[in-house]
Amino acid sequence: VKSERDAVVLESAGPVERQAIGRLVVDTRGPGFTDVTGRVAAFVAEAGIADGLATVFCRHSSASLTIQENADPDVRADLLTALDGLAPRNASYRHSLEGPDDMPAHIRTMLTATSLQVPILGGRLALGQWQAIYLVEHRDRPHRRELVINLNGT
Amino acid sequence: VKSERDAVVLESAGPVERQAIGRLVVDTRGPGFTDVTGRVAAFVAEAGIADGLATVFCRHSSASLTIQENADPDVRADLLTALDGLAPRNASYRHSLEGPDDMPAHIRTMLTATSLQVPILGGRLALGQWQAIYLVEHRDRPHRRELVINLNGT
Amino acid sequence: VKSERDAVVLESAGPVERQAIGRLVVDTRGPGFTDVTGRVAAFVAEAGIADGLATVFCRHSSASLTIQENADPDVRADLLTALDGLAPRNASYRHSLEGPDDMPAHIRTMLTATSLQVPILGGRLALGQWQAIYLVEHRDRPHRRELVINLNGT
Repeated sequence: VKSERDAVVLESAGPVERQAIGRLVVDTRGPGFTDVTGRVAAFVAEAGIADGLATVFCRHSSASLTIQENADPDVRADLLTALDGLAPRNASYRHSLEGPDDMPAHIRTMLTATSLQVPILGGRLALGQWQAIYLVEHRDRPHRRELVINLNGT
Repeated sequence: VKSERDAVVLESAGPVERQAIGRLVVDTRGPGFTDVTGRVAAFVAEAGIADGLATVFCRHSSASLTIQENADPDVRADLLTALDGLAPRNASYRHSLEGPDDMPAHIRTMLTATSLQVPILGGRLALGQWQAIYLVEHRDRPHRRELVINLNGT
Repeated sequence: VKSERDAVVLESAGPVERQAIGRLVVDTRGPGFTDVTGRVAAFVAEAGIADGLATVFCRHSSASLTIQENADPDVRADLLTALDGLAPRNASYRHSLEGPDDMPAHIRTMLTATSLQVPILGGRLALGQWQAIYLVEHRDRPHRRELVINLNGT
């Protein structure tokens, strides 16, 4: 017997009518997570996309994106510690002219996301209850970072 | 002399006419890979999208997606072992209230994918011969997981 | 007082009119990065997409994609070294029939990207100044790799 869980259940079908592309500037304060979910959701509302797809793109190779738990800040602290262990500062990198934090930042960017998508349903980002979209700064010093957001749908 | 391999060869061009968005519930049995390729492909067929793009999104931060080798099950076993080494259970995490498997699950999610895309050509997912789309459960216990699938094209 | 940086600034809005899907064959020479940015950008120009979204998909599970720094080649050398450390050749893998480089290649693929997106604005990929799109070969020997590129927009 096949249950409902055995197939994709249709939520929305129709034409792809419109797109909107926007830029978001984020000033970071050094290593850490900046929650951009609210600003992406506001752009979805302003653009009036009811059903479709949101794509977030980060224009940098030493900062990146991730969708992660939005409840306990300790999760983000542990994620930074984990990235620190996977791409340590004290390894002997060939690329070192831009400082000891630069090459680890490139590696951490490669291991996370430069682009990600979230479907849009009923005018809202179809994120899970505990998910938020984060820009992750990997450099030691504050940076001005730029995201480009593409929405398409109806 | 430029060969055919020097440029992108056009396979399909035309209007973007339609989209379909669906939900897929997957009951996992603890750590491991669940192949969802067939269910995504069936949704592409039902939606009648011939050429376009499929996006799969995972609504969780302790389960994730990956496109991997679909032939030898030992590959998936080794991938789990690798994730286990990269995000070990016995590290001293700050976030530990939800159990020793929760923080490793968040790290493994960050290192893999929460959203991914596969182009659609001729009514089929343009996967390589050895590729399948997997949901990866990172928690110890079985969970009900939800994916959202967005298709657009013609 | 809200500054411009507090919200997504609209760059483009309009209909989603067209899509183009193409294939790009890349002959790799063993482990390393192949810059495919120019070929993807040329496809955007040929397809005549002014504003929209480019998706690049890799049809393999032992080669992958990343968007990384395009200036100092030492960065790519260090990235390869980092992947080598995260997925070492000399671990005792169950899957070993295809050679000692195969399972590390699968792990490195899982930790990087099989699909990625770049928005298109004004007929150009909206990459940051220092970003390029790379195909990363993870196997020891040269391989013929195939990418599928989906463009949509107006």
